[in-house]
Amino acid sequence: MLEIIPLERLTEQFAKLPGIGRKTARRLAYHVLRMPESEVKTFAQELYKSRMSVKYCSVCGMISDSDICDICSSPKRDKTTVCVVKDSRDVFAIERTGEFSGVYHVLGGTISPLENIGPDDINIAGLMERLGEGVIKEVILATNPDVQGEATASYISRLLASYPDLTVTRIAHGVPVGADLEYADEVTLVKALEGRRKV
Amino acid sequence: MLEIIPLERLTEQFAKLPGIGRKTARRLAYHVLRMPESEVKTFAQELYKSRMSVKYCSVCGMISDSDICDICSSPKRDKTTVCVVKDSRDVFAIERTGEFSGVYHVLGGTISPLENIGPDDINIAGLMERLGEGVIKEVILATNPDVQGEATASYISRLLASYPDLTVTRIAHGVPVGADLEYADEVTLVKALEGRRKV
Repeated sequence: MLEIIPLERLTEQFAKLPGIGRKTARRLAYHVLRMPESEVKTFAQELYKSRMSVKYCSVCGMISDSDICDICSSPKRDKTTVCVVKDSRDVFAIERTGEFSGVYHVLGGTISPLENIGPDDINIAGLMERLGEGVIKEVILATNPDVQGEATASYISRLLASYPDLTVTRIAHGVPVGADLEYADEVTLVKALEGRRKV
Repeated sequence: MLEIIPLERLTEQFAKLPGIGRKTARRLAYHVLRMPESEVKTFAQELYKSRMSVKYCSVCGMISDSDICDICSSPKRDKTTVCVVKDSRDVFAIERTGEFSGVYHVLGGTISPLENIGPDDINIAGLMERLGEGVIKEVILATNPDVQGEATASYISRLLASYPDLTVTRIAHGVPVGADLEYADEVTLVKALEGRRKV
């Protein structure tokens, strides 16, 4: 088999990306090797610069380009309602509906004993801290409707039971069970938010 | 719409790659932003380094990591038979069959008046130069069976007519093995009938 070292090494890198198989990786690598040098340089610089400049909101844990994200720092957002999600991508998904005016809390994962991820490994402590400030009136548990998401939601709801004035809700199962929140369509997400119920 | 600058900029870069749509680009960008810094650094370096180290064989024009590619420098390859292809990827495809023991000539494109690509814009001069050395006995024209490929093959075959001792062949076009005759397009069927051989 013919081996061109730069092509092989670059294919290796692309193949590490999610959803990129060996064949696609090779096609991308080949394309990059034929791109103008200046464009490849820009791509490489952008890759590293973007990674180095990315931050996480100190309030909600959302991926951001500043210390406090645009949502948390917006005076238009309702700080009394917090939507708890697994991942920043879930925030993007809910924001696309344009129907939620509250703020978020990004856990950065869900409880998963099989993967050795416990409550202390995700940002639950940050949520408790925010609750301690006494501003939050409702917590919407919007983790995915899968095993880990449900376990995380029920774990948090048990923790929150000690706050008598707090309303804790779970998004409705308008989101198809087993599917990923990120890929749900806007209407489904709106339904899921509207249909939230007390837990 | 929520805009996280590093995410947007990186999405932009990935979206430039062939076959990568906006949504995939965003998913890849998000993934990179969450990769360990050291891995992103390696990826960026590999990108630039690979691009800078890629060479093209001075004999056949094939993508390579040395001045003369492994095929052209191999004593096992038959230098009297040259297979003319559009692109280095075509060499990979033919090499995968393991059935061709000759050498290649990579044109780096095909004649396409609509795209303003003439005979001087592809590596035909290099082929003529190789023929001048008097070693080559057969030239196999293996450009794609599309308008540009056919035009290029017929242009080259006319040029080669002045070499009386040279055999010039064109790869066979017909119904692909395993394909259904019913679904073959008319042009392919005509070619298949024209190219019929005694059994």
